[in-house]
Amino acid sequence: MIFVDDGNGGRAVVVISGGLDSTTVLYYALDRGFTAYPITFDYGQIASAEIRSAESVSKRLGLPWRRVDLSGLSDIYMGATSLVDRGIEITREFSKPIVVPFRNAVLLSVAVAYAGSIGASRVLYGAHASDAENYPDCRREFVEAMERAARLGTGTEISIEAPLLSLKKSEVVRLGARLGVPFELTWSCYRDGEVHCGSCESCENRKRAFLEAGVKDPTVYQDRAHQNATRERGEG
Amino acid sequence: MIFVDDGNGGRAVVVISGGLDSTTVLYYALDRGFTAYPITFDYGQIASAEIRSAESVSKRLGLPWRRVDLSGLSDIYMGATSLVDRGIEITREFSKPIVVPFRNAVLLSVAVAYAGSIGASRVLYGAHASDAENYPDCRREFVEAMERAARLGTGTEISIEAPLLSLKKSEVVRLGARLGVPFELTWSCYRDGEVHCGSCESCENRKRAFLEAGVKDPTVYQDRAHQNATRERGEG
Repeated sequence: MIFVDDGNGGRAVVVISGGLDSTTVLYYALDRGFTAYPITFDYGQIASAEIRSAESVSKRLGLPWRRVDLSGLSDIYMGATSLVDRGIEITREFSKPIVVPFRNAVLLSVAVAYAGSIGASRVLYGAHASDAENYPDCRREFVEAMERAARLGTGTEISIEAPLLSLKKSEVVRLGARLGVPFELTWSCYRDGEVHCGSCESCENRKRAFLEAGVKDPTVYQDRAHQNATRERGEG
Repeated sequence: MIFVDDGNGGRAVVVISGGLDSTTVLYYALDRGFTAYPITFDYGQIASAEIRSAESVSKRLGLPWRRVDLSGLSDIYMGATSLVDRGIEITREFSKPIVVPFRNAVLLSVAVAYAGSIGASRVLYGAHASDAENYPDCRREFVEAMERAARLGTGTEISIEAPLLSLKKSEVVRLGARLGVPFELTWSCYRDGEVHCGSCESCENRKRAFLEAGVKDPTVYQDRAHQNATRERGEG
């Protein structure tokens, strides 16, 4: 594989899910002067709104967005996580079944392969400190081990970076606000739909992060939408 | 993820391509007393005969074979390798374009995820010494780095093993012969078809390995089939 630099910072593959963390990483990459190649994975997740968000953000920025169909993986994950199996109830609190086993390793491996094919010298992804508490594949030791495997496996000096790793989610919101991230285009909800449900664990985390950051939350949540509708109909 | 052992050796995910190396690893795993879960990746390779071989071998052994559709990856690889892009000529000698960048990391990551979902404590794959010369993701340092990433990323003691890593391809053939591998069911050719072409790099390696091993090669090669047909028609 040949890694070439172009622009002032070189090419960077940015793994984006459509959520606010990874979208912030994308704006961070552009801010650092990288030529960004956003890539999004469809692994059969219920919340396909996430993927539409990733596309919207990339299009607004005029970037060459790439969607990779990994929906064949859902068979593997079936029964192991409620994010892809509609038979498992989505809970408000963090719980074991939410974890897609070793998902980030799969996504990073494909991102490294993509980097090789387009001549990018780095891969960025959105793991942050609040994730790292619950997900072992969002921890610094893991990122470092994957980077080592990537360098040995490609025979290059490719780097894997998780620039949000020392930030809590509320600090990510603050960074995103500073970088001009269009939060209204991002998607966090574990459920699919027109608006965020407002009650799953991920919506709760999103709400709390904006609140703690002191940044206005532009998200429309189903529970609030429902309250407003009830009020308008004079039932409240 | 919970890893449970069953049988005398526990459960092992075995990555099989349908080729003779990985089929030998499958027989090796059974010989060691593992309960084997063969898994095969369809990443859009031209040689789909490989996948049919993997299925045949698994069925003959009565094992729960799993095919994972990663054909969405072919977009990523397009232009980077002649194994998935019909626009690149397949050459007789090893050449850069043959390398699917970082493929083994992708396959091993998915295999580790699968291991987590079925409670297997190890993943086996067929990298061997002759591969290691050309493919960085077939080298011992890479396997060790991936195993470290897998342990850190899953929070388990899962192991990744490449039991053929110190063997040349001819030694793999000898081991396979001892373990009763049905070589006639395995597929090595880079091209698709009813029989092996006999002239691509992979066919050349296969022929040479049997010859060096002193093991009878049961493979039907197109070039020989053509010679025989010509001879039968009295044209030879």
